[in-house]
Amino acid sequence: MRGRLITLEGGEGSGKSTQARHVRDWLQARGREVVLTREPGGTPLAEAVRELVLHRWDEGMTPATELLLMFAARAAHVHALIEPALARGADVVCDRYIDSSHAYQGARGVDGVHLAALEALAIPGTMPDLTLVLDLPPDLGLERARARGVGNRFEDEALAYMARVREIFLARARQAPQRCVVVDASVSAEQVAAAIDAVLGARL
Amino acid sequence: MRGRLITLEGGEGSGKSTQARHVRDWLQARGREVVLTREPGGTPLAEAVRELVLHRWDEGMTPATELLLMFAARAAHVHALIEPALARGADVVCDRYIDSSHAYQGARGVDGVHLAALEALAIPGTMPDLTLVLDLPPDLGLERARARGVGNRFEDEALAYMARVREIFLARARQAPQRCVVVDASVSAEQVAAAIDAVLGARL
Ligand SMILES: Nc1ncnc2c1ncn2[C@@H]1O[C@H](COP(=O)(O)OP(=O)(O)OP(=O)(O)O)[C@@H](O)[C@H]1O
Ligand SMILES: Nc1ncnc2c1ncn2[C@@H]1O[C@H](COP(=O)(O)OP(=O)(O)OP(=O)(O)O)[C@@H](O)[C@H]1O
Ligand SMILES: [Mg+2]
Ligand SMILES: [Mg+2]
Repeated sequence: MRGRLITLEGGEGSGKSTQARHVRDWLQARGREVVLTREPGGTPLAEAVRELVLHRWDEGMTPATELLLMFAARAAHVHALIEPALARGADVVCDRYIDSSHAYQGARGVDGVHLAALEALAIPGTMPDLTLVLDLPPDLGLERARARGVGNRFEDEALAYMARVREIFLARARQAPQRCVVVDASVSAEQVAAAIDAVLGARL
Repeated sequence: MRGRLITLEGGEGSGKSTQARHVRDWLQARGREVVLTREPGGTPLAEAVRELVLHRWDEGMTPATELLLMFAARAAHVHALIEPALARGADVVCDRYIDSSHAYQGARGVDGVHLAALEALAIPGTMPDLTLVLDLPPDLGLERARARGVGNRFEDEALAYMARVREIFLARARQAPQRCVVVDASVSAEQVAAAIDAVLGARL
C-alpha cells in the first residue's frame, strides 16, 4: 500500500523542523517506515540547489530565478526520493513543500498561473495527504529563527513580506480543509506537539 | 542607443565558443564595446547553476529539473548582465541562448508549451538581433568536443539525441529567417569565420 505524504508548512522559525521530527517519531512509534526530508533539498542535487537559493548573492536574485530554482529542486526531490518512498509504502514527512512556493513566491508577486504551470511541469500530482500549517506572528518566528543563528536570504526580508506569506498559508489552508490543518505555533513546543498528536490521531 | 544581442547556437563541439570570440573581435575592431558571455552561466549565480546542470549526478536529472535550472540561470543572466549591457549600448555576444533550450530540452520531449511559458516567465522579451546556427553532423561535433577533454553530461548522450537537437536548431532557423543564419560548421575554423564575417557585414 502506498505511503502517506505529510508536510509541515509555515513561516521562518515557526517550528516546522522541530515538529517534523515529532511527526516522524509518532509514526515510527506506530510501526511505520518513515522518511524525514525537507524542501528545498532532500537529495544531493536538490540540496545543492538549496544552497544557491538560500545564499546571499551580490547580484541579487529575481523572483523568477528563485521560483525556477525552487521547482527544479522539487522536481528532483519528488522524482528521486518522495515518489520511490511512497511507492514502497513508506510515509514521507516533508519540512516545507508546495504551499511554501505559493506563499513565499506568491508574496513576491509571482502570478498564481505561473505557479500552477510549474507545479504541473515539476510534480506528477504528488500532493500531501496531510499538511500541518504552523501559524504564528512573523516577528515571533523571526526572533526564534535568528536566536538559532546562521540565517539565510529569507530571514533578511521585511516583516511586511512575512505577513503576506502568513496570509497566503492561511488562505490556502482555508481553501483545502480536507488536506490542511492550521496549528497555533505561538505556544511551547510541547503544546504544539500535543495539538499535532490530536490531529494525527484523528486524520491518519 | 541600445546594443545588439548576437547569439551562437549549435550542437556539441560545433565551434560556438571559438566563433563567439571571433564575433567579439570583429565588433571590437569596429569600435564597439562588447560583452562576451555564455549560457548556462554568465554571472556568479548562473555559473553556479551551470555546474549543477553539467554535473553527472548519481540520482540522474529529470528533463523537468534540467529545464527549470536552465531557465533559472537564464533569468539571472538576462537580469544581471545581458539587459544592463544592452541598455548602456554595449553589444552582447552570447555562446548559446534560448534556441539551445528549445533544441536540447525539446529533444528530450519537453512540450513547446512549457518552453514558451518559461520563456515568458524568465526573460522580459530579450530576443537576439542575430543568431548564428553552427551546423554540422553530431558525430563530428562530439569527436571535436571529446578531443578537447573533460566532458559533461550532455556529451554522454546518444547520437540519436544529438540528431534531434540538430533538427530542432535547423527548424527554428527556418521559422525565423530574419533572426537566424545557418552556417556550415564542418569546414575549418578559418572558413567558418570567413562565412560569419560575410553574415556580420551584411546584417549588422
Ligand atoms: N513552540 C516553540 N516555542 C519556542 N521555541 C521554539 C518552538 N518550536 C521551535 N522552537 C525553537 O525555535 C527555533 C526555530 O524552530 P525550528 O527550527 O523548528 O523552526 P522552523 O520552522 O524549522 O524554522 P526555519 O523556517 O528557519 O526552518 C529553534 O531554535 C527551535 O528550538
Ligand atoms: N571548424 C573547426 N574545425 C575543426 N575543429 C574546430 C573547429 N572549430 C572549433 N574546433 C575545435 O573543436 C573543439 C570544439 O570547439 P568549440 O569549443 O569552439 O565548440 P563549442 O561549440 O563551443 O563546443 P561545446 O558545445 O562543447 O561548448 C575545440 O577544440 C576547437 O578548437
Ligand atoms: Mg526548519
Ligand atoms: Mg563551447
